Amino acid sequence: MPGLLLGEVFPNFEADTTAGRIKLHEFLGESWGILFSHPRDYTPVCTTELGRAARMCGEFKKRNVKMIALSIDCLEDHHSWSKDILAYNCEDSASRSLPFPIIADSKRELAVALGMLDPVEKDKDGMPLTARCVFIIGPDKRLKLSLLYPATTGRNFDEILRVVDSLQLTADWRVATPADWKPGDCVMVPPSLSEEEAASRFPAGVYSKDLPSGKKYLRYTPPVG
Amino acid sequence: MPGLLLGEVFPNFEADTTAGRIKLHEFLGESWGILFSHPRDYTPVCTTELGRAARMCGEFKKRNVKMIALSIDCLEDHHSWSKDILAYNCEDSASRSLPFPIIADSKRELAVALGMLDPVEKDKDGMPLTARCVFIIGPDKRLKLSLLYPATTGRNFDEILRVVDSLQLTADWRVATPADWKPGDCVMVPPSLSEEEAASRFPAGVYSKDLPSGKKYLRYTPPVG
Repeated sequence: MPGLLLGEVFPNFEADTTAGRIKLHEFLGESWGILFSHPRDYTPVCTTELGRAARMCGEFKKRNVKMIALSIDCLEDHHSWSKDILAYNCEDSASRSLPFPIIADSKRELAVALGMLDPVEKDKDGMPLTARCVFIIGPDKRLKLSLLYPATTGRNFDEILRVVDSLQLTADWRVATPADWKPGDCVMVPPSLSEEEAASRFPAGVYSKDLPSGKKYLRYTPPVG
Repeated sequence: MPGLLLGEVFPNFEADTTAGRIKLHEFLGESWGILFSHPRDYTPVCTTELGRAARMCGEFKKRNVKMIALSIDCLEDHHSWSKDILAYNCEDSASRSLPFPIIADSKRELAVALGMLDPVEKDKDGMPLTARCVFIIGPDKRLKLSLLYPATTGRNFDEILRVVDSLQLTADWRVATPADWKPGDCVMVPPSLSEEEAASRFPAGVYSKDLPSGKKYLRYTPPVG
């Protein structure tokens, strides 16, 4: 995102949210974080997305991930629209509220600072709306991964959960996850580990593939974690 | 990505690739484009990723999408490593080459300009490697979507194909795709279309959900395209 590279500390902004005024770092505490933006309240794709996020919130909570949404709408709209989201997506919604706050970035300050705008999608005054961004933030408050989708394309929340699983596993173990990895699949052993280190660290075995180059870098081990 | 927002024209850079020197816009021509970077040749996750990309290249070609890879390695390494990728991932690899070029960004010029570096992953001289970026570029040469994954987390190529399908469908029809959409699912009718316009544009029917707000924005129509 503009101004925000992998590994950089995420800005500790203050903002008004449906759960009161917050400072991002204090809100996140020791948790992982997912900050995700949507173009506009009372629009169809956003309603399906925030509904899916609400239904999956338990999975993220189990993984110690706090979610927080953002759009350029005001708090009043966020509160009223939340009832639509719950009615459409969640059973027994009458007594419940969304399980994550929504930031009211009415002045577009965060949207501009974090490069979240989609210039193709404009409101009736010709001002650009927020795109569908996802920022995954580690417990060290650093950016670990980001997605930037346009307003027309709803996100894939299974993929967001998959990358959280990979980010957490690879933060805890000295491994990396291959293309299309899912929890329970084998993981890759990085080239920075010597054969001896790898053998002692992964007692279930380290296997390598023979390749035309003769190099022994394609090493994997059964699932860890 | 730093300096590159959704909707901006992708820089028309010149670069050396395994298919010769190219200028990006001329290489793409009238096609859609996927520019994707990897940290380093001769590393395990990258080998699984470029192998998967090679196996899926037919699917992208059917959709008029040209692929081009990038890392900070030299052409000689790209060529030799390609043999490993083919041997590991593709049957009958002896007589074939990778179905897309790889850019040799040895001086890290593109990696810096496009915000592709992963500061956590460094080479033996302490220089940061490329992250796992994906830029999807439209036939108008504008950025449509981007992903930024760290070196430890291999990408999901099914998700990349899914978003290409969504981007192309929503560019051709005035629709948007909901959360977790797959080809063949219903699509959403955007609020910018009046009831009359929507009815005439989607003869298979436009359905809306009743919501607590009483607003009629949650409209969908059977699959189009």
